[in-house]
Amino acid sequence: MNILTRPILEINLNNLLDNYKMLANLAKNATPAAVIKDEAYGLGAKIVAKLLYEKANCRNFFAAHAVEVKEIAATHPNATFYILQGVGADSIEIFRQQKNIIPVISSPEVLKYWEENKPDNRKVAIQVETGLNRLGFREDDLKVLPKDKFTEFSLVMSHLACGDEKDHFMNAKQIENFERIKKTFFPNTPASLSASDGVFLGEKFHQNMVRLGAAVYGINTAPYRQNQMKNVVRVLAPVLQVTNLHKGDFVGYSATYRAGSERKIAIVSIGYGDGLPRSLSNVGKIFLNNGKIHEARIIGRVSMDNIICDVTDISDIKAGDLVSIADDFYTLDDVARDAGTISYEIMSRLGKNPRFERIYIQD
Amino acid sequence: MNILTRPILEINLNNLLDNYKMLANLAKNATPAAVIKDEAYGLGAKIVAKLLYEKANCRNFFAAHAVEVKEIAATHPNATFYILQGVGADSIEIFRQQKNIIPVISSPEVLKYWEENKPDNRKVAIQVETGLNRLGFREDDLKVLPKDKFTEFSLVMSHLACGDEKDHFMNAKQIENFERIKKTFFPNTPASLSASDGVFLGEKFHQNMVRLGAAVYGINTAPYRQNQMKNVVRVLAPVLQVTNLHKGDFVGYSATYRAGSERKIAIVSIGYGDGLPRSLSNVGKIFLNNGKIHEARIIGRVSMDNIICDVTDISDIKAGDLVSIADDFYTLDDVARDAGTISYEIMSRLGKNPRFERIYIQD
Repeated sequence: MNILTRPILEINLNNLLDNYKMLANLAKNATPAAVIKDEAYGLGAKIVAKLLYEKANCRNFFAAHAVEVKEIAATHPNATFYILQGVGADSIEIFRQQKNIIPVISSPEVLKYWEENKPDNRKVAIQVETGLNRLGFREDDLKVLPKDKFTEFSLVMSHLACGDEKDHFMNAKQIENFERIKKTFFPNTPASLSASDGVFLGEKFHQNMVRLGAAVYGINTAPYRQNQMKNVVRVLAPVLQVTNLHKGDFVGYSATYRAGSERKIAIVSIGYGDGLPRSLSNVGKIFLNNGKIHEARIIGRVSMDNIICDVTDISDIKAGDLVSIADDFYTLDDVARDAGTISYEIMSRLGKNPRFERIYIQD
Repeated sequence: MNILTRPILEINLNNLLDNYKMLANLAKNATPAAVIKDEAYGLGAKIVAKLLYEKANCRNFFAAHAVEVKEIAATHPNATFYILQGVGADSIEIFRQQKNIIPVISSPEVLKYWEENKPDNRKVAIQVETGLNRLGFREDDLKVLPKDKFTEFSLVMSHLACGDEKDHFMNAKQIENFERIKKTFFPNTPASLSASDGVFLGEKFHQNMVRLGAAVYGINTAPYRQNQMKNVVRVLAPVLQVTNLHKGDFVGYSATYRAGSERKIAIVSIGYGDGLPRSLSNVGKIFLNNGKIHEARIIGRVSMDNIICDVTDISDIKAGDLVSIADDFYTLDDVARDAGTISYEIMSRLGKNPRFERIYIQD
């Protein structure tokens, strides 16, 4: 009997590469950049950056924090790494060490900090606010900047709030604001407005650079239509035990499930400690794929290391079987819908857990 | 101006140690063991294990997977490490290398696997089912085991489903089941029934060994009364920008917040990529503590790297300030209530994110 104990995170780098190329081609008049913040959404920033650098000629990367790309920037001196959370006393040393790490400056205060502490005269990026009301210079901030400041920026960028809804009025409003700000303050500066979702909104959203993240990793960033991206992530977990419930038995913490009849259950080795949302309690699903795909429900609370599933209708399930939590036929977008969140959040959690057995698939 | 960019995870090892000692003293007729699975609930398994070994004489530890304690077991040969998810083909090699790692066997199938693959005759632990209906031998499984098997176990254990509710009928039912199983099958084997929550249920729940986890890390595992544990975790995050909303402005992804009047907002550098639950969107709180504690709400969606907060009523907040997400006066238990989950899940997420600045406080 084959007994396994650890969940498996399988990352298909072939599909990831195909997704990047597809998006870059959709926005072929813009320079493609890869978003590798948060460990490339948990999938491994070093591996993803190396792949896209070598196989797709990617030379521009975005991260949230300098510390996320410190080592990658050192080993890829011909690429540029933009840092979306800017620069401060807790990161300036990294900018000092690596000339190819570029802060995205989003406020007058951070611009002042950079001017006073910058190690050299490298050009930096500036973020302007167009409707998301997150980080970025407001137009009132730009009006009081000294005129000669506007020549110092290598990139002017903003970010869409509702790019995942094709006809949302915010998209038209944000591009109008962005075009006005560019014309007024940055007529000759390369511009970037869109992440993955904006790529699907048409060429005027592409500007000079697109920042490709979520969709590269297989997430459907255009949920108003079927996903066009190839699936990148599979999450598998081993069945540790198959046993029975008697009528009336309770299951899991706080006894939130009670069997109304005799049931067969499987205890599976994955839990919220592995990044599976606890909100899947009594809601989530697992699948046994043995030629035919069998579906079963999580019953009771998701605990740190385990889920318990009602497998009454799967006749031949046994300890040692691997079941799918997310797979090509039921992706993390589907799991996220069940969990009441978005796949970005789940992906970001899964990949950072050291007890996963990680498998990278690559030709 | 002091500009910071990274969130801070502060772990108070003094309080953690005091909590362990307090719980061990409450169950003073039992051997205390520390639960360090899932990276000691995200707080750092190596650091926590070393602390409790050296300062509290802890010699018994529980983890979920052998891979979690492989290195710790090698550097602490005089301690015993119990593995709750058992043993299989993906972990047997670690058991071969480290004699002080002991599988907890929870099913006939895994017992068979161990018998066929065990590297030596070390005694192992056995888990029996008493009401949680998770991993464990059912009484029917025990009845058909050969009689000589019962001498081979160094520990018989089970786990409470509702130990966090003092008067829950499940507690009485589980101890009755556990006592019957012990008497019938394991009359001379040391026994363990309770994790932190069970320690508060009285001496008969303590048995021979208590498994101290969540409460050591400051979680209130007895929420029917005020938390008796010292707080261990603080989560701080820097304000990156303070700016204004005009009446009618939308905030964040999918424009889920709209300003009904002029507002002042702070953009703070923490998001679900750092482990802050996205379910805090439009619900969660932050605090500025400058002598007086000021409270503000998260508005709009939590994004991967940022939250946006309505700080209209905090007159002197500015870029560079550190705000509290979780603190001694508003703990992760409180944050979890706001997020619709338990602090265990949040703690498990926070600690595994490399972009936190981690600070360990220790005398």
